[in-house]
Amino acid sequence: MEVAVIGATGYTGSELVRLLGQHPRVKLSYISSRGDAGSPYDRVHPQFYRAVELELQPPDLELIPGAAELVFCALPHGRSAEVVPALLAAGKKVIDLSADFRLLDPALYESWYGWAHPAPDLLEKAVYGMPEINREALPGAALVANPGCFPTSALLALMPPAEAGWVDWESVVVDAKTGVSGAGRNPKQAFHFPECAESVKAYRIGDHQHTPEIEQVLSRLSGEAVTITFTPHLVPMIRGILSTVYLRLNRDCTSEEVAQLYRHFYSAHPFVRLLPGQLPETRFVRGSNYCDLGWRFDRRTGRLVIVSAIDNLVKGAAGQAVQNMNLVLGYDEETGLGQVPLF
Amino acid sequence: MEVAVIGATGYTGSELVRLLGQHPRVKLSYISSRGDAGSPYDRVHPQFYRAVELELQPPDLELIPGAAELVFCALPHGRSAEVVPALLAAGKKVIDLSADFRLLDPALYESWYGWAHPAPDLLEKAVYGMPEINREALPGAALVANPGCFPTSALLALMPPAEAGWVDWESVVVDAKTGVSGAGRNPKQAFHFPECAESVKAYRIGDHQHTPEIEQVLSRLSGEAVTITFTPHLVPMIRGILSTVYLRLNRDCTSEEVAQLYRHFYSAHPFVRLLPGQLPETRFVRGSNYCDLGWRFDRRTGRLVIVSAIDNLVKGAAGQAVQNMNLVLGYDEETGLGQVPLF
Amino acid sequence: MEVAVIGATGYTGSELVRLLGQHPRVKLSYISSRGDAGSPYDRVHPQFYRAVELELQPPDLELIPGAAELVFCALPHGRSAEVVPALLAAGKKVIDLSADFRLLDPALYESWYGWAHPAPDLLEKAVYGMPEINREALPGAALVANPGCFPTSALLALMPPAEAGWVDWESVVVDAKTGVSGAGRNPKQAFHFPECAESVKAYRIGDHQHTPEIEQVLSRLSGEAVTITFTPHLVPMIRGILSTVYLRLNRDCTSEEVAQLYRHFYSAHPFVRLLPGQLPETRFVRGSNYCDLGWRFDRRTGRLVIVSAIDNLVKGAAGQAVQNMNLVLGYDEETGLGQVPLF
Amino acid sequence: MEVAVIGATGYTGSELVRLLGQHPRVKLSYISSRGDAGSPYDRVHPQFYRAVELELQPPDLELIPGAAELVFCALPHGRSAEVVPALLAAGKKVIDLSADFRLLDPALYESWYGWAHPAPDLLEKAVYGMPEINREALPGAALVANPGCFPTSALLALMPPAEAGWVDWESVVVDAKTGVSGAGRNPKQAFHFPECAESVKAYRIGDHQHTPEIEQVLSRLSGEAVTITFTPHLVPMIRGILSTVYLRLNRDCTSEEVAQLYRHFYSAHPFVRLLPGQLPETRFVRGSNYCDLGWRFDRRTGRLVIVSAIDNLVKGAAGQAVQNMNLVLGYDEETGLGQVPLF
Repeated sequence: MEVAVIGATGYTGSELVRLLGQHPRVKLSYISSRGDAGSPYDRVHPQFYRAVELELQPPDLELIPGAAELVFCALPHGRSAEVVPALLAAGKKVIDLSADFRLLDPALYESWYGWAHPAPDLLEKAVYGMPEINREALPGAALVANPGCFPTSALLALMPPAEAGWVDWESVVVDAKTGVSGAGRNPKQAFHFPECAESVKAYRIGDHQHTPEIEQVLSRLSGEAVTITFTPHLVPMIRGILSTVYLRLNRDCTSEEVAQLYRHFYSAHPFVRLLPGQLPETRFVRGSNYCDLGWRFDRRTGRLVIVSAIDNLVKGAAGQAVQNMNLVLGYDEETGLGQVPLF
Repeated sequence: MEVAVIGATGYTGSELVRLLGQHPRVKLSYISSRGDAGSPYDRVHPQFYRAVELELQPPDLELIPGAAELVFCALPHGRSAEVVPALLAAGKKVIDLSADFRLLDPALYESWYGWAHPAPDLLEKAVYGMPEINREALPGAALVANPGCFPTSALLALMPPAEAGWVDWESVVVDAKTGVSGAGRNPKQAFHFPECAESVKAYRIGDHQHTPEIEQVLSRLSGEAVTITFTPHLVPMIRGILSTVYLRLNRDCTSEEVAQLYRHFYSAHPFVRLLPGQLPETRFVRGSNYCDLGWRFDRRTGRLVIVSAIDNLVKGAAGQAVQNMNLVLGYDEETGLGQVPLF
Repeated sequence: MEVAVIGATGYTGSELVRLLGQHPRVKLSYISSRGDAGSPYDRVHPQFYRAVELELQPPDLELIPGAAELVFCALPHGRSAEVVPALLAAGKKVIDLSADFRLLDPALYESWYGWAHPAPDLLEKAVYGMPEINREALPGAALVANPGCFPTSALLALMPPAEAGWVDWESVVVDAKTGVSGAGRNPKQAFHFPECAESVKAYRIGDHQHTPEIEQVLSRLSGEAVTITFTPHLVPMIRGILSTVYLRLNRDCTSEEVAQLYRHFYSAHPFVRLLPGQLPETRFVRGSNYCDLGWRFDRRTGRLVIVSAIDNLVKGAAGQAVQNMNLVLGYDEETGLGQVPLF
Repeated sequence: MEVAVIGATGYTGSELVRLLGQHPRVKLSYISSRGDAGSPYDRVHPQFYRAVELELQPPDLELIPGAAELVFCALPHGRSAEVVPALLAAGKKVIDLSADFRLLDPALYESWYGWAHPAPDLLEKAVYGMPEINREALPGAALVANPGCFPTSALLALMPPAEAGWVDWESVVVDAKTGVSGAGRNPKQAFHFPECAESVKAYRIGDHQHTPEIEQVLSRLSGEAVTITFTPHLVPMIRGILSTVYLRLNRDCTSEEVAQLYRHFYSAHPFVRLLPGQLPETRFVRGSNYCDLGWRFDRRTGRLVIVSAIDNLVKGAAGQAVQNMNLVLGYDEETGLGQVPLF
């Protein structure tokens, strides 16, 4: 089975190339880039020298070989929705890593992203690609909307009590800390090394575009109209997201009942690890598709504090996309995703 | 006026030496260390070579010269309370940077620190050294309890609405991110470079010993029995604390009313900066005694999100101690604290 | 084929566990640790949770199962030589990652390490495990001395012109920059995050114990008594060694002749990459067994400047050890070492 | 005395503003920027909020107030030489921080910088602003060429033996490691946080434009036509340059004779510190105008290895410029430069 990656030079794209280049069931046969077409891939990303021998193609959909039945689309928001319809029309399966097909409501998309959705009729057809809640919908899906990095991190922490109906939604605060690779590969002032090393900051308080994505999933799971506070922070590290989630339960609960809830919810999900007696740290998941979860009850204030850690480029993007591909194509979910975290 | 520093080799101690060595009104005449007594100070901290020419003394209170009328005590929690009574008895003024004299209730101290308070009768005599609320109590004070780094960061964000009685206390969450120097100078596994670089983690969720200190001040200011959730995080940088404070107000408020509240509260306080139109980042205060504040209303959830940034070793420790000394001794509050943040 | 790791909790040990846990031809059946015996491995290194399910054993050689025919010894210098004789006597093959069996001359060992060699008679039996020069000697070897991290980095840069007899040895300077994981996992003042972040330093100028190891190999290859200047530096990163090697050739040479020399020397060696038109950076090899090489002629001064980059824990330690194991056991040299560098 | 800074928003410019804003003898009255004219300075650099209250002016020389008798020019190479003639013609004294007036030979300038020098007749009039060798030439000078960061670091290490005639120039290698702020404030791919954190690299081997500047000074001091090898490296830290200088002396020398040579050379120079028994680390000079020097004899190879550490933005740029200003204007050399290094 051959697969393609459109937008292969960004950080998400290069993680896809890393994972697909070693995947035992698929062959990466086509990669494209607007800016670097014509270059050998290892000139743009020398870490791949000898490991991946492909040349970047122009982003011309005609060039995708017929044998490539599945296409990963790692384009910026907005650009993706311009390309995906043609790919679907050509009979390709698409795993889209942009935000373009994550929100069901085109008006919500427009209000958070700032432009009218280019292909609103596709929104209902897209499967939200979080296997921990949507595994059954994925086999054979034509279009998968791969979740955002922050939503993955927040949702994996919140979904068990959300589904159980245990959450006092008024109380939910998600305080997330991300490494700088989350900002993408294009150099900007805020991510220039001397401007973000040795410093921490909050940004986009109350208006980050990942907020409605988190709320949409939680609303569906809980059957309530969920509104949450979400605050991202920039931390001087390359990879990783740690989300600290604060909430009150709407019932009395022992720690053991919470533990059982999580164990049960994730019992059949290989990439979510409930660390025994240890809080998550992003270094424990670096380079892997794991999401680590831990929690503490703050008995004094009645809050449950849940911590989740992912590698934003793996479980938060490319790894989850490969996990989705495995399910779409009927492979074992873990195929090609056995990387042990790199200390 | 001569001053002394006990415990001069830790990070807080060396910041005291940096600030006092350049202070125009006092002379640093005595520094001590248990482990490095007998060494020139610049052998332990070579950055001071040529700038500070003092030899470390053993921690023998008899050695403090008579001319030193004021002593900074930068010892670990518990050790300080063993030393301070003798210093006071000898007629010295004491600015204590440990946690030993911050809590009014010795039972509370014992429950959070794990041992009986060694000098409970002094607790009521200590002045809590946060000039932004206690400036009037400081001139001439015999014993100043210098606030903790996290409490300084959290309180400066929360005190204006607390004093105004505007806070729905059930809603308060303080999510703090600290640099590694906050852990002190003794090497430990968790702060070994390869274990904490390129990673973020939460720790001591719900049981950090700075929690009751924050609550005590807020309770006094608000007249309510305040309980909050406080979660510290470790971030791969040397200096800085960023606290993100979540709360709901108990009244309808415009953004401008919030701004007026803060402007009014801090109008006479030179070290608190309300950044115009910009959220705080720890790099903007590095090496200085400033606390930067910013906030956003999250109208969707009704939360006010306040962000504060300090240098944990300066406004969070040694700088605030010098600010307190200035007030105790009747100097201008800003004397010797004019350092511009070092980008 | 079962294998064992003695000293499995240090950084080198945990890299061995990472690589062996995924190796398709061997089964990691025994791991030991003096300090953490009795703990599940993933309690000490949570990144391995779910990936490696082994319990740490006490360092008792009797416990090594009979099925484990090959033992990796990742003990400190000096301790290794006390253990290896018994392992060999028990018929195990040993790959030793300490410095104990790298130098042929026990007097040289004593003068650089400071104690008499505990097992001098084994020195001549050990095979120096650098496959790029010793591949033929490895199949079936009983004892392999795995090279040091700095020597690996310096030698891979210098061996081609050394073997060709082209080097003016008087001119050779090796200036190496290492990440902090090279200092091991035990916390020490110099590697405490606040003491080594945001800083660079040189250390052990002229007396680092890896110097004679480099010289021994170069002397053998060149047939001359080689003495070089080697200076290590500590850089604020976790992994990686970049060595910048300065030398003058003893003959006129074009750039193309130098390129041919290197291409020829490494034509059959899969882990040495001669980057086309790009200088090495440690990030391009992170987590992989590659050594990247690049060079420039400084025509103004007649110097050839060669740059090499390795991951100190992989090609500089555990990866090379697995490469050696593959050759000892007759497997393909690349087995289990296909990790693409992790950006 | 009023002074002006042209190009005030770059890293060198903002360090000038930091130092001049606190200088007791001058008043910073004018700052300009092409891109940010019209903005309050603290909007571009929020660390200066409350500390510096100036508005950025357009780069129109007419706007420089008559009272400003001295102008710091912190423009890019090439742009500076277009501006300086008019400033001199207007009777201003100029301290130029670009490379435009450092090389005496316009042909050399053209060959290394790639364009014809815009004002070659001024080259002979400029005083090279390294007070440690040119202090006598500075009082009253009209045009000072402030040295480059790498040249400052390399020359302070090499000048004592150069002047003494002790150096075997064939043997000199300068291996320099710089923090990322040396690359300036404009974001570029190579200095994007995820591209340079956790990595080290060499760059511009054999052709860095600071090479002829180093050689020019050493040639003048030694009376020989000096050619050296200079290799810069990029290290993941914000500030600092560590240079490791390798050389052979042309005479037999004891360590004590070398120490005496350095002590004598720098006896009257307050900013060069010869650390007793400790090698320099960049953290020991951070934020200060010090250059720390240390050395070791490598007796085995006959090399002297000298290490120098500076803060590239202070002694390597803005601090040295203020030091030069002090001397030009007849102030004490240390005025306004008493900052203790910030750990």
